Amino acid sequence: MEKKNREEELLNTAAKLFRMKGYDATSISDIAAALGIRKSSLYHYISTKSDLLYRISKDTLEELLQGALEIKKQDLPPQDKLLKLVENHIRLLTRDLDRYATMLRELDSLEEEKRRELVSLRDGYERVLRETLQEGVKEGAFREIDSKIIGFAILGIMNWLIRWYKPGGAYSPSDLAKVYGDFILKALEKKK
Amino acid sequence: MEKKNREEELLNTAAKLFRMKGYDATSISDIAAALGIRKSSLYHYISTKSDLLYRISKDTLEELLQGALEIKKQDLPPQDKLLKLVENHIRLLTRDLDRYATMLRELDSLEEEKRRELVSLRDGYERVLRETLQEGVKEGAFREIDSKIIGFAILGIMNWLIRWYKPGGAYSPSDLAKVYGDFILKALEKKK
Repeated sequence: MEKKNREEELLNTAAKLFRMKGYDATSISDIAAALGIRKSSLYHYISTKSDLLYRISKDTLEELLQGALEIKKQDLPPQDKLLKLVENHIRLLTRDLDRYATMLRELDSLEEEKRRELVSLRDGYERVLRETLQEGVKEGAFREIDSKIIGFAILGIMNWLIRWYKPGGAYSPSDLAKVYGDFILKALEKKK
Repeated sequence: MEKKNREEELLNTAAKLFRMKGYDATSISDIAAALGIRKSSLYHYISTKSDLLYRISKDTLEELLQGALEIKKQDLPPQDKLLKLVENHIRLLTRDLDRYATMLRELDSLEEEKRRELVSLRDGYERVLRETLQEGVKEGAFREIDSKIIGFAILGIMNWLIRWYKPGGAYSPSDLAKVYGDFILKALEKKK
């Protein structure tokens, strides 16, 4: 298998174990065993367990942020931008629950420097969400709200999916994006 | 110190460490050290680390459920019941973030039998929330919704507080209950 694919498989397997057993309780040997390779072969790809956590978390945060920045620059009303942000988040998170759960739960297990780098990506992402809320209030599309607390409510709704969403179950990611997008827009609606 | 208080102090200290370091990474010795007592003295109160996780989680789930059941039996419109459920949840969770974070994150670390007992308490609690939503739809107080997905959205908004809420910060628990209660009711409002 080509190196790139091997690396993806490694990150997927690590994320699955980190999600199932927790980062602390998962060893490099567990990951090698799950991949059916020797521990020494693993070190072709990574040097430490925290490398894996860093790359898993960085990938998810970068794709979230990239999607959000593309939505931000579109010429759309705030309601549509917000719906697209919700759809982007739910689509990415449900496509890769193990990686997103790992990023959401384990960021604090990283060494300080790496943790700070990723927290700053996360802050950047949350900023796009808040700015979209603020823009909507300013333009009269949303009622007056505190974009920080409401931003966290929206993140809570979406991120809670890692606790209950089962792929292939009764709800497709696009159903969920629709229901939650609708719920959030109604909550922000300005009284006529 | 009287035994009851000693036990409370023990549960608080354990919950704080479980939240900070994770359940797996926290040892009985860490807990004894944080309490400034010998490991052997700890065994007056508990027999295993999982005992501590069980008691912390059971306490939180029982108080949540008890509050919810009292609200459920009151003769109130569904909107008011829902606001009271949100207020109950946010008040309890923000009063004891370490214990609630431990329960929310670590339930799966319990042995199967204990885990099942607590999951059934949690299911009971979530049922009260969903029934309140269904009652509201039936009585025409809320618009038509799927009480399962919307129930999870409401839980997500409230439980996400363990990720960002700082006691003594800009928002009091009752401010948050008000803002989130309002957000949720607006999202459920039936169009006139």
